[in-house]
Amino acid sequence: MFITLEGTEGSGKSTQAKLLKEYLESQGKEVALTREPGWGKLGSIIREAILNDKELKLDPIAELFLFCADRAQHVKDFIKPKLEDENIVICDRYFDSTIVYQGYGRGLDIDLVTRIAETSTLGVKPDITFFFSLQVEVGLKRLKNRDEITKMDNEPMEFHKNILEGYKKLVAEDNKRFNVIDADRTIEEIKKDILGYF
Amino acid sequence: MFITLEGTEGSGKSTQAKLLKEYLESQGKEVALTREPGWGKLGSIIREAILNDKELKLDPIAELFLFCADRAQHVKDFIKPKLEDENIVICDRYFDSTIVYQGYGRGLDIDLVTRIAETSTLGVKPDITFFFSLQVEVGLKRLKNRDEITKMDNEPMEFHKNILEGYKKLVAEDNKRFNVIDADRTIEEIKKDILGYF
Repeated sequence: MFITLEGTEGSGKSTQAKLLKEYLESQGKEVALTREPGWGKLGSIIREAILNDKELKLDPIAELFLFCADRAQHVKDFIKPKLEDENIVICDRYFDSTIVYQGYGRGLDIDLVTRIAETSTLGVKPDITFFFSLQVEVGLKRLKNRDEITKMDNEPMEFHKNILEGYKKLVAEDNKRFNVIDADRTIEEIKKDILGYF
Repeated sequence: MFITLEGTEGSGKSTQAKLLKEYLESQGKEVALTREPGWGKLGSIIREAILNDKELKLDPIAELFLFCADRAQHVKDFIKPKLEDENIVICDRYFDSTIVYQGYGRGLDIDLVTRIAETSTLGVKPDITFFFSLQVEVGLKRLKNRDEITKMDNEPMEFHKNILEGYKKLVAEDNKRFNVIDADRTIEEIKKDILGYF
């Protein structure tokens, strides 16, 4: 089973990913928890370029391709082998993030970005995706306590709002795969909600 | 004017690129000579990952996206501004290389690779492309005197032959843009041939 977590910045995905892993392990499952971007050697080079290198002003198309290169290598070297070993894989952000950030956020052509993002999955689609629904302002306020503030976090409010709108469209188009989680609640409440799916 | 040089390994493109630049400058033109992959800060990171890092076993799709990220940033930051400044730009390898190396060489879907490679140009197409036609064996023999032997150079003979076949198909499909240069001649003879186009 392949589970992905999606949402705007500060929506609490990463915390819930860990809690879900702990829960599934307590049920005797083998669980691999991972995230994008930034898996492995190529991923760490790309993550640095995309998220942290303040000097580098990436062209939106270059940024799109970097996220997709990171994903393809991640799928090949980690996600696919883990799924083949019958692990449950939980991935904090996956190809939906590319569609909303590069498509809706950067304003690139949505069909083009969707095709490219789908190519980057090497055909490995999530079975279930949790969308953490939260007002942009609330999420950004939460970020202030974080260690790593990235270039994405520092984008203008408009960018983050476009991303939220993008997510809403994706959810509306595929409500079989997406489950909407109200992320404006306590960690315990959200956890209980998510565990209800398993 | 935007000129690109294409061909298999060791076909003499880089030598002729420099000679062409000198000639055009002697005619009073402003000329910008560049190459792919590897322009600028992002490019040097990507070039290292694709061509030199022996540890990193890239997925072909990841490799495709890395070449395309490199190109998009190169076009945005260098090629486009130089063309807008009315420079003649000479580029040693461009999007045709992606189509033949990742499509015909790695065996990815040609239509998909073509669409992605075209996207990476940001719409900046060459006005004229010289294809350096040479038997694969002759080119690879020439490489032995080079400083930088890359991962591409070390691919099996089959890979290089597929690339040559790929180039021949591209040339056949667009013989208005492509000019075929017989690269199995002396540097002086090839130079004379190319200068005849200007």
